[in-house]
Amino acid sequence: MKLNIIPVKWSDEGVLMLDQRLLPTEEKWLTLRTYNDVAAGIKDMVVRGAPAIGVSAAYGIALGAKQFVGTNADDLAEEIDYISDVIGATRPTAVNLFWAIDRMKRTFEKAKGEGKSVSEIKQILIDDAKAIHDEDIESQRLIAQFGGELIENDSTVLTHCNAGALATGGVWGTALGVIRGAVDQGKKVSVIADETRPYLQGARLTAWELNEDDIPVTLITDNMSGHIMKKGGVQAVVVGSDRIAANGDVANKIGTYMVAVLAKRHGIPFYVAAPLSTVDMNCPTGDEIPIEERDTREITHVKDVQLAPEGIGVSNYAFDVTPNDLVTAIITEKGVARAPYIESLRKQFEQ
Amino acid sequence: MKLNIIPVKWSDEGVLMLDQRLLPTEEKWLTLRTYNDVAAGIKDMVVRGAPAIGVSAAYGIALGAKQFVGTNADDLAEEIDYISDVIGATRPTAVNLFWAIDRMKRTFEKAKGEGKSVSEIKQILIDDAKAIHDEDIESQRLIAQFGGELIENDSTVLTHCNAGALATGGVWGTALGVIRGAVDQGKKVSVIADETRPYLQGARLTAWELNEDDIPVTLITDNMSGHIMKKGGVQAVVVGSDRIAANGDVANKIGTYMVAVLAKRHGIPFYVAAPLSTVDMNCPTGDEIPIEERDTREITHVKDVQLAPEGIGVSNYAFDVTPNDLVTAIITEKGVARAPYIESLRKQFEQ
Repeated sequence: MKLNIIPVKWSDEGVLMLDQRLLPTEEKWLTLRTYNDVAAGIKDMVVRGAPAIGVSAAYGIALGAKQFVGTNADDLAEEIDYISDVIGATRPTAVNLFWAIDRMKRTFEKAKGEGKSVSEIKQILIDDAKAIHDEDIESQRLIAQFGGELIENDSTVLTHCNAGALATGGVWGTALGVIRGAVDQGKKVSVIADETRPYLQGARLTAWELNEDDIPVTLITDNMSGHIMKKGGVQAVVVGSDRIAANGDVANKIGTYMVAVLAKRHGIPFYVAAPLSTVDMNCPTGDEIPIEERDTREITHVKDVQLAPEGIGVSNYAFDVTPNDLVTAIITEKGVARAPYIESLRKQFEQ
Repeated sequence: MKLNIIPVKWSDEGVLMLDQRLLPTEEKWLTLRTYNDVAAGIKDMVVRGAPAIGVSAAYGIALGAKQFVGTNADDLAEEIDYISDVIGATRPTAVNLFWAIDRMKRTFEKAKGEGKSVSEIKQILIDDAKAIHDEDIESQRLIAQFGGELIENDSTVLTHCNAGALATGGVWGTALGVIRGAVDQGKKVSVIADETRPYLQGARLTAWELNEDDIPVTLITDNMSGHIMKKGGVQAVVVGSDRIAANGDVANKIGTYMVAVLAKRHGIPFYVAAPLSTVDMNCPTGDEIPIEERDTREITHVKDVQLAPEGIGVSNYAFDVTPNDLVTAIITEKGVARAPYIESLRKQFEQ
């Protein structure tokens, strides 16, 4: 394993993002020079994955603050509220987005309350965005360590979508962090990657990432996992999450629920790996999680190739909710939470 | 409803096939002038769907016999054996292929046994291939009638892959026959079509067919059906089949098993529609049904667009098996069979 994939970076010129829309055929970095560019990068899925969206949002706010031209902290407060609204309107399901915005706002309020100058506050916000990024990578390292212990030697792990280094601050990833953790612990693990229509994060990103780290990966279409489970070809499922409710219901990429139901039928453990910033204790159950619907062209076309006739209806739900009774364990940087999640998750926050 | 889609036809120039690889963006007919062309047309999926493959195989044998240049019936027998082997090697899962080959061989043996001349036998084979085609359309009309009665008014029916007019001799289809039957009976029905990766028969063919017949259709990715069922958006599932074992286990397009498991979880009836020629009483259970694996490029590319990195593993199982306990009923031209299928299917053959 090279462990060197970091999809978003801070630089003096702006926020650097690896353009994930072009992977796996092209590796191109974009320099996003304003907070509006960062918001567009999140919305257009230059970067995606809940933890990566959180890190990007923090950098976007730091960038917007840095470019504020006044000297009055009250004016900067207004500007930061405005920037936060713009960035917060990009992706409704990923709670890490709102978590990062809240944290940056609190950091701002604290610095302002301490009477720091605008110029000092700008540097504090940049430093805190970098700290959010560093902490995210450290969380993943711990998720990898805790989760790796749940994976058996000589096993095949199925994953859906991309909850890898690309979906986070980088290096380990959440679901792929668990797999990298198992490999790091000396276990032999191979991976089955669902291609994850319509945006093909599995085919384009997970397959690319694992290949980069020399972890054997087999790509399948999303409708194939049941057949392979039935043949005994899957020993564990690991996925990431875009938001976990207080009761352990898990919002994640569309199709996760189907994999969870199939895993249950076949007695295969179904693990969710995510930093605590993904857990929304203000959200009692999965029913309250908003489910983003995206442009139907993602389904009817692949680049310029038209796949479906004109004039039909198309639905494009980006996420679904897996109820907590299908979840074997939730792996965070604090350890392995098991049912009842309402208690085990609360304990992790109190640690 | 126009009820006018017929994907394969006999003509003096050869077998005419609507090139389903080009749908929905282009409607182009190919003239296949030799039995080798017909075999290639089946293998390359110009035509696909078990009943349509059966009809095409019969026409291919008739065409090969018509082009036989000798006058000795024993030589023609050898030629027909050879043609049958070529056509029989195209698609292993669809039992209708072998059913049609067997029937054409028996027709030949009977005519030969009755001392018919080679020229008379040629015409008998052409007539029997046309009869197979006519009987297939009549079977679908009956499937539509029996199956239509199972669908409730004002309901949304989910289907996977294309078991429509395009997958059969034409007009009604099997699974889409059930939907057309319900519409024909005056019921208001809308359809959710799984896109059906990798070959996208749902997006390309089912959506096109239903649109042609003015039946409302909404396209989704294969990983979305669980979410929609959970929201209460599906009242029945209807699929076709490539082979049904004597115990009612159903081989069908990859992903069917996952839909069946989800339907069971949500208490939604799961219907299979197929002519009796799809039922293989020589196959005791689904475990004995061979599962075709196809070229992995179907998954890694859409036309010339590369979706996945080089150097990874890819699996491309074309079919899966749904165990009989997930099947609410099997609808054939003889009526509606229910569990235990070993008895109900046998009774249908004896009718």
